Amino acid sequence: MPQDKQTNRRLLLASRPHGAPTAANFRLESQPVPEPDAGQVLLRTVWLSLDPYMRGRMSDAPSYVPPVALNEVMCGGTVAVVERSEHPDFCVGDWVVSGSSWQDFALSDGRDLIKLSGPVLEHPSWALGMLGMPGFTAYMGLLDIGNPQPGETVVVAAATGAVGSLVGQIAKLKGCHVVGIAGGAEKCRYAEQVLGFDRCLDHREDNLAENLSRHCADGIDVYFESVGGKVFNSVLPLMNTKGRIPVCGLIADYNSSGIADGPDRLPLLQSAILRKRLRIEGFIINQDYGQRFDEFFNQMSRWVAEERLVFREDIVDGLDNAPEALIGMLEGKNFGKVVVRVAQDKPDLKR
Amino acid sequence: MPQDKQTNRRLLLASRPHGAPTAANFRLESQPVPEPDAGQVLLRTVWLSLDPYMRGRMSDAPSYVPPVALNEVMCGGTVAVVERSEHPDFCVGDWVVSGSSWQDFALSDGRDLIKLSGPVLEHPSWALGMLGMPGFTAYMGLLDIGNPQPGETVVVAAATGAVGSLVGQIAKLKGCHVVGIAGGAEKCRYAEQVLGFDRCLDHREDNLAENLSRHCADGIDVYFESVGGKVFNSVLPLMNTKGRIPVCGLIADYNSSGIADGPDRLPLLQSAILRKRLRIEGFIINQDYGQRFDEFFNQMSRWVAEERLVFREDIVDGLDNAPEALIGMLEGKNFGKVVVRVAQDKPDLKR
Repeated sequence: MPQDKQTNRRLLLASRPHGAPTAANFRLESQPVPEPDAGQVLLRTVWLSLDPYMRGRMSDAPSYVPPVALNEVMCGGTVAVVERSEHPDFCVGDWVVSGSSWQDFALSDGRDLIKLSGPVLEHPSWALGMLGMPGFTAYMGLLDIGNPQPGETVVVAAATGAVGSLVGQIAKLKGCHVVGIAGGAEKCRYAEQVLGFDRCLDHREDNLAENLSRHCADGIDVYFESVGGKVFNSVLPLMNTKGRIPVCGLIADYNSSGIADGPDRLPLLQSAILRKRLRIEGFIINQDYGQRFDEFFNQMSRWVAEERLVFREDIVDGLDNAPEALIGMLEGKNFGKVVVRVAQDKPDLKR
Repeated sequence: MPQDKQTNRRLLLASRPHGAPTAANFRLESQPVPEPDAGQVLLRTVWLSLDPYMRGRMSDAPSYVPPVALNEVMCGGTVAVVERSEHPDFCVGDWVVSGSSWQDFALSDGRDLIKLSGPVLEHPSWALGMLGMPGFTAYMGLLDIGNPQPGETVVVAAATGAVGSLVGQIAKLKGCHVVGIAGGAEKCRYAEQVLGFDRCLDHREDNLAENLSRHCADGIDVYFESVGGKVFNSVLPLMNTKGRIPVCGLIADYNSSGIADGPDRLPLLQSAILRKRLRIEGFIINQDYGQRFDEFFNQMSRWVAEERLVFREDIVDGLDNAPEALIGMLEGKNFGKVVVRVAQDKPDLKR
């Protein structure tokens, strides 16, 4: 079902998931396209970003931001085009990054919008990936918390995902030995052959701990955590003294509800933190590093221009396919950054 | 059995404990007093420090330092007097801090010795407490990792112990709201009335979580961890966003062996680290901060001179009572910093 300019399709949170989300947690509805008031713009969504944090917003467990309310539009970052403008700073045809959510049209007072300009207009969806929130997460988590030094070993989970693929490539640019962890032989091959990781290991194989130990012969200095779950069990014993663990996500645990079965691994972790003097630090990119976006964007844009980074997108066509794509991503079925192509527009680069 | 100058009593590690240490893990033997070679001094122990880390050295689990070997002298920091000197930098009668272990006499080449001078000579055992390793641990862990700001809430476990009592007092000097946790009503009263904590809670009472929540109305910004175990369960839900947890010890877990029963609290901790963007960092004071000892010592000496710090010692008389005192300390039976008075000497302040 393609986008049309008379209808605003919206994907609502119909119910909260117990465990993994299902299609029944979402509901598609159609409404009239809203009218901008003075000081507002009407945005039309072209690209919608799907990201692991969205699972958290579907639950009403206490978190750092309120959940999506029931029967409200699912939240999400987008690249959108200004369709109508009653705002002095925006013109019809401007491309912007916005938080306009899982819908075709949205109103904005402009405060949450960033205009796209320069090279990113050639590839607008990168503003949701390499040059947007996932890239910013990879860059700051790795460099500011992880602080990797040349020759050190960096291990990154979800190695072919939006964040992980960039963490590993930036670590290579910094002269590190990089070992990825991913699900399945194809992703592992891609991480080694295309992304340039020194090694990538399949977490679905039984001998992950053994393989990791073999390929991290000097131990692990930085573990970039975005996964949680059992991968951590294999990583922890290999952490070196003064190792750093930036934590940007725990996708393996997002669907879990209630208390996990034993044994209790907390004393093991505490003991490792003490004995190895580890630093473990969680971060939420915009809250913690918002004021350093330009620093990231400028450096990352240079690397992109120099073609030193590879960024694979897993493109899903059509807003109505977003629920299935999110469900699949939480199961690791995606291969690269998941973006939904809601409309086919491309920026006019001569404009 | 008092010290005599013809015999070197030594307390050896006779066997490794399973769980809590017992008297049978130690053996007292007597040897002739050793003779210093050229470049050596002969030290006679006056004060022996007993500290929680010693439990770790009794086990042969992998750690940041090798364990004490079986049938070797138990390790430990001491304040000692130079009895004979074949070393150009030391004179007979010098008082030093050394690592001369659980024995009356030891040889040293001088490299591990720090001469006592100035006000600390009036109270030499403070060199093992407020002005030594425990004070250094409290100071750096709280100020460098914890980084407490005026008005923030600092919670400290083992609140009347060598480290905890100083953590809380330094936090008060920095303008924080300080809540201690200790074992028993007497220790709690002491922390509030003598140490000046805003509140001290008894971890032996059933409603620790509830009490903690009531007395940390604005949440917890810094939790100084030296205990582990169940106290952490009450603290974690109250940690504020961007909270800091310096970890200097885990006394409650030192005696545990093998895998703890469930439920598995690791996912809960990981989730808190992420959602609250916590920083948890282990440290070993001399390895991590050795180069900043003077900074600590100068500031701490000023506070001591200004009588802004209280430091309670739990003095045990006689080297042969050290095993029992260590066992008691690991059970929380001490009240203040445990030091063993191995000999009765006092420095000659007019010298």
